[in-house]
Amino acid sequence: MYDVLVVGGGPAGLSASIYASRYNLKVLLVSRETGGQISDADKVCNYPGFVEVSGFELASKFAEHARKLGVKIKDAEVVSVRRDDGFFVVETEDDMEFKAKSLILAPGKVKRKLNVNGEAEFLGKGVSYCATCDGPFYRERTVVVVGGSDAATTSALLLSRYANKVYVVYRRAKLRSMPSWVTMVKNTKNIEVIYSTIVSEIMGENFVNSVVLDGPEGKREMNVDGVFIEIGGVPQVSLAKELGVKLDQSDHIVVKPNQSTNVRGVFAAGDVTTGSDGFQQVVTAAAEGAIAARSAYRYVEGDER
Amino acid sequence: MYDVLVVGGGPAGLSASIYASRYNLKVLLVSRETGGQISDADKVCNYPGFVEVSGFELASKFAEHARKLGVKIKDAEVVSVRRDDGFFVVETEDDMEFKAKSLILAPGKVKRKLNVNGEAEFLGKGVSYCATCDGPFYRERTVVVVGGSDAATTSALLLSRYANKVYVVYRRAKLRSMPSWVTMVKNTKNIEVIYSTIVSEIMGENFVNSVVLDGPEGKREMNVDGVFIEIGGVPQVSLAKELGVKLDQSDHIVVKPNQSTNVRGVFAAGDVTTGSDGFQQVVTAAAEGAIAARSAYRYVEGDER
Repeated sequence: MYDVLVVGGGPAGLSASIYASRYNLKVLLVSRETGGQISDADKVCNYPGFVEVSGFELASKFAEHARKLGVKIKDAEVVSVRRDDGFFVVETEDDMEFKAKSLILAPGKVKRKLNVNGEAEFLGKGVSYCATCDGPFYRERTVVVVGGSDAATTSALLLSRYANKVYVVYRRAKLRSMPSWVTMVKNTKNIEVIYSTIVSEIMGENFVNSVVLDGPEGKREMNVDGVFIEIGGVPQVSLAKELGVKLDQSDHIVVKPNQSTNVRGVFAAGDVTTGSDGFQQVVTAAAEGAIAARSAYRYVEGDER
Repeated sequence: MYDVLVVGGGPAGLSASIYASRYNLKVLLVSRETGGQISDADKVCNYPGFVEVSGFELASKFAEHARKLGVKIKDAEVVSVRRDDGFFVVETEDDMEFKAKSLILAPGKVKRKLNVNGEAEFLGKGVSYCATCDGPFYRERTVVVVGGSDAATTSALLLSRYANKVYVVYRRAKLRSMPSWVTMVKNTKNIEVIYSTIVSEIMGENFVNSVVLDGPEGKREMNVDGVFIEIGGVPQVSLAKELGVKLDQSDHIVVKPNQSTNVRGVFAAGDVTTGSDGFQQVVTAAAEGAIAARSAYRYVEGDER
């Protein structure tokens, strides 16, 4: 029996575990992989205290911090959750069950799919959701990044170090990434941004050959060797739904300022929530985790406010 | 003319500056000293990513991060602020004036005084508000720590390494510090907690000799060589008041989820605000700073939401 079971091993879940252990709570973190989406980031330059660090290294530091404080980490996906006599029972993919007095849901998001023809067919054959992982395969090639957020601009900047040419295709008329990244994109000679345009099809034979662009002047085909899709994330809310946790229209978990949800004993933190005014950063996820841990502690101690 | 002027050099102000510079805003941070209250902390064990770091070192890392991103830091106290034609004009103690389109107030708190006889008289002669600074002067002496929060327990733990005996005098029946600190206090042989008791007077000749304790069994005098006062902080809101910024009953700046205040163009972050469900940690202050910077950016760009 655990005091707190944390679902998710990104910055929010790891921070929640760090704080829960500082509260002397018995805490288990269950996650398919520690690090979360940040692990795929080439560079993180805005987590205060680290001028520049790879996402993988930052995630590793969070995980080390949690482990040093005695947090148990179970590497497995949670497949279901149920209430049982006031407690929560979490089942993992390897058919194990864990019982806890409270839950902190911090499952984050998974990369959103384009949902176009060719996307599934060419996955791993020119289609990628991770520039950090797959960028080095595209030396002296031509690639396209789909999207206009921080993930898209930073992926384009990374790819520009390998590829001869990087196109950024974005459906809006203006990038909505941090201005410092936008400036860097504009100052990088082998990056070209194609605005107000979508990728409507991915084509090839054994491997990607081209994409169909659909823009202000209609459709046209463009030859590319790789397609990197960075169009945001989908909140992972299947467990939240099983528990009857309230979601907003965009499927984020609705949290109060103390990170509690509408279900007693269930707290949430990180990209999956409506918290931090929707600003999804490592530091805001970590802060939400800390606040959630304090609320879980108060709940477990019978000191709800 | 600056886009954003940040008042305060603690974790909130430094994080706000880091984010503001990532937004390519022209940013000036004005602060009497960089680091804020955290600089006095002997150990910080819960800022995710750093298993254990001195408060001074952590504050230095934040400041280095801001400087590397090009943030200008002016070491001076702000003495007044006024509105002028839609802009803010900030005056510093050395009679300089700085003009900015928006303000982020992150002045933090200063240590609360006990307001008892002898406190002012023996300041620096046995009375201290900083165990990290003054602890080493009390080797093999007897000291008392007044308070029961994290600042009090961590000060007691630090002092226990120097002093022969450390008393913690707290007005409540239970310490309200992180349970991990409380456990350490209870396991430290030369620390003794005196509950439900206040220090009502500090006495001595050239130097502190004793304190008067007022507890369940009445008043008694106890011989001590040093008195460390750790009873929380007072929000620094004189500038906020000049600007007509709304405060709550306990004098914290009332902020919306985007860290805006009731005054257009004025944002706030850190211990001085009502944000983060009142949980005042380095990580929550840093997150509030990040959110405030985004809101200031939107305000400066004419993109308020």
